[in-house]
Amino acid sequence: MKISSLTETELIAARQILQKSYQACTDQGYNLDLTRGKPSSAQLDLSNELDGILGGFYLLQDGTDVRNYGNILGIPEARQLGAEILGVGMSETMVGGNSSLTLMYNFISHMMPVWSEEAGEREDAVKFICPVPGYDRHFTLCEHFGIEMINVDLLAGGPDMAAIEKLVKEDPMIKAVWCVPRYSNPTGHTYDQNTVKAFARLDRVAGKDFRVLWDNAYAVHDLIDESAQLHNLMDEAKSSETENSVVMFASTSKITFAGAGIAFLATSTTNLKAFEQFLGPQVIGFDKVNQLRHVRFLKDLKNLKTHMNKHKALLKPKFDLVEEKLKSNLGDSGVADWTNPTGGYFVSLNTLPGLANEVVRLAAGAGVKLTPAGATFPYGLDHDNRNIRIAPTYPSLDDLGLAMNVLVVSIQLASVNHLLDR
Amino acid sequence: MKISSLTETELIAARQILQKSYQACTDQGYNLDLTRGKPSSAQLDLSNELDGILGGFYLLQDGTDVRNYGNILGIPEARQLGAEILGVGMSETMVGGNSSLTLMYNFISHMMPVWSEEAGEREDAVKFICPVPGYDRHFTLCEHFGIEMINVDLLAGGPDMAAIEKLVKEDPMIKAVWCVPRYSNPTGHTYDQNTVKAFARLDRVAGKDFRVLWDNAYAVHDLIDESAQLHNLMDEAKSSETENSVVMFASTSKITFAGAGIAFLATSTTNLKAFEQFLGPQVIGFDKVNQLRHVRFLKDLKNLKTHMNKHKALLKPKFDLVEEKLKSNLGDSGVADWTNPTGGYFVSLNTLPGLANEVVRLAAGAGVKLTPAGATFPYGLDHDNRNIRIAPTYPSLDDLGLAMNVLVVSIQLASVNHLLDR
Repeated sequence: MKISSLTETELIAARQILQKSYQACTDQGYNLDLTRGKPSSAQLDLSNELDGILGGFYLLQDGTDVRNYGNILGIPEARQLGAEILGVGMSETMVGGNSSLTLMYNFISHMMPVWSEEAGEREDAVKFICPVPGYDRHFTLCEHFGIEMINVDLLAGGPDMAAIEKLVKEDPMIKAVWCVPRYSNPTGHTYDQNTVKAFARLDRVAGKDFRVLWDNAYAVHDLIDESAQLHNLMDEAKSSETENSVVMFASTSKITFAGAGIAFLATSTTNLKAFEQFLGPQVIGFDKVNQLRHVRFLKDLKNLKTHMNKHKALLKPKFDLVEEKLKSNLGDSGVADWTNPTGGYFVSLNTLPGLANEVVRLAAGAGVKLTPAGATFPYGLDHDNRNIRIAPTYPSLDDLGLAMNVLVVSIQLASVNHLLDR
Repeated sequence: MKISSLTETELIAARQILQKSYQACTDQGYNLDLTRGKPSSAQLDLSNELDGILGGFYLLQDGTDVRNYGNILGIPEARQLGAEILGVGMSETMVGGNSSLTLMYNFISHMMPVWSEEAGEREDAVKFICPVPGYDRHFTLCEHFGIEMINVDLLAGGPDMAAIEKLVKEDPMIKAVWCVPRYSNPTGHTYDQNTVKAFARLDRVAGKDFRVLWDNAYAVHDLIDESAQLHNLMDEAKSSETENSVVMFASTSKITFAGAGIAFLATSTTNLKAFEQFLGPQVIGFDKVNQLRHVRFLKDLKNLKTHMNKHKALLKPKFDLVEEKLKSNLGDSGVADWTNPTGGYFVSLNTLPGLANEVVRLAAGAGVKLTPAGATFPYGLDHDNRNIRIAPTYPSLDDLGLAMNVLVVSIQLASVNHLLDR
């Protein structure tokens, strides 16, 4: 049913049917949630072996007792694992606690004094470029630090690099750009080779102390076998002598335990040394016992990929179900488009302009919680009011199917109402 | 031998003997370390059961899966344990990651904007009172934030409260005071009841947003059975309606694993709510799996005290050895005094004024690393150059004995040299 082409009479008839369908949904008293990218219990179970894996052995090859204090950059074995995941050298990689978000926060804290001083001199603000739609927690960090955010469109091959280059050239107070380069949150796109090369060159035209914040949260999170490969930013940056502009992040949150994994940061050795000194006063060392657990469990990148195949087996049916529900119900409707990602944790859906809020409201009325419309944009402001992030990983397949039925009806009803109101 | 009363001839004779003893030490090629308050391997072994204790069960009574994201204030079971350790209510307590130092850093970060704004208006600096000798990492935090430190003497019953009250009354930019109220680092003193009561009243005469930073790091770390009891600051503060000025810290770093424990912060529920909001952008939740491990292992305060008795059995002989070496060699020397603590991790020793640096240098020359003289004072400045912190917990009893021999000879030799140089 191509809703966008219906006559008024047809729309009125459709509305009657959809209102009944919607009412049928609300009558079910659902309490379903598609908001956050959380792994399911079955996924978490894949790593239960972590607890107890040390078997009483806490010594490293170099004699370090991981139970005691010390070693801010992390144990060598875990640094090596992080380096393999991020495609960089071990000396460029550190291991933190259970959250890459906290490492991002710490890194920005570390840079803020320098950036703020320049902002003061120029009587201007510190600014970050935010490809949109993007990850709400990146935007929240910026708001926390009072960093001004500038939207740039995220296209299928990555952010609009021509726009970014122009902005960065013109404004030296643009100090960073947020990137989720592989299976971007929420679209699932992977940056293509030209985009990565353009990011590596960006520092050459940017102001002082510019950083590419490369949040590779889904570095190994494929949904299909022939997955999209990400070109190596650090290698490119070294060719351009811009490696000080590269700061990469990753974590095992969606590999082992979401709240009890280990996080990685990789950057030039010069930057890493300065960051270690910044962390010195506040940290005697991150949890090295948990770092060792992860190394014993995940071993190396090859074994880690075998582990990720088990996640894939649990996640693929969920993403397939989302695609099937959307395609079969909205495929030719003309009122929505969406991504069909080959990895990551999200599907990005666009309604007709102006309807995202209303769809979220309708779904909530029928017991399905969606991420607030606008959450994928800085300041929560989606000027087109059309983007909705779908997180299919946490619910059971049955619950996901029910929630998708509600979402589909909500989109159809909101669209028909909207077309009738014109 | 009362060194301080020797005649010049006697001193010259003593010097010859001491130089030979010192040379004998250096000939041994020791590589010993009395610098940091680290638990020994045997102490760490007491908690090896932690890894694997969960046995595959990750659900809380309220249905929370500790492996997943969320819950910034920590799991209720761990908050309860922290509340018992700190003698406060569960609703006033949160559980962090592996470091109370990081919670202190975060709490100061949280307060700095408010404090700095007032400092700007008054064209003054944010200032903290630091009882001395004290904990070097507290001072490093202040330096990191550019907070001005004001020394106040730590006496046997606690800090000089008359001096503190006077300072706080006169200067509204004094925004906090550091306290290690039980088995203070490094003296081992426990604040007496009147001191605690005075701290509870301090907010009444202090400027806006004043905080007592109550680092109860050694809350349960006794070396004898009839241990010094600490009066309850939070109860007193509630009587004085000053509970917003109370911020307590503790951790299991010296209960379970030094680098892989859990940390606690307790304050008024009003403060805690504001602090949770501050943490929101940077933390999705601390490691709840490790929190649950600790609850399963330590259970409650009663069981925890049984566990601490095992630490006591390992630590008491070491502190006894330090006391015996100091007493038998320097007891009537007139050139040193020291504390004989009933708990905690340190012995605080004073040389003759002006000699601490020289003693540290001599000991290093004979292969014994001591905490740098001055480390127990803000900015590393011990104006009397006499305080040395001894950390006897980490070395074996044999190594500790050897290190103490070197320390004793170094003090004797430095003192004799000094008396001859007058």
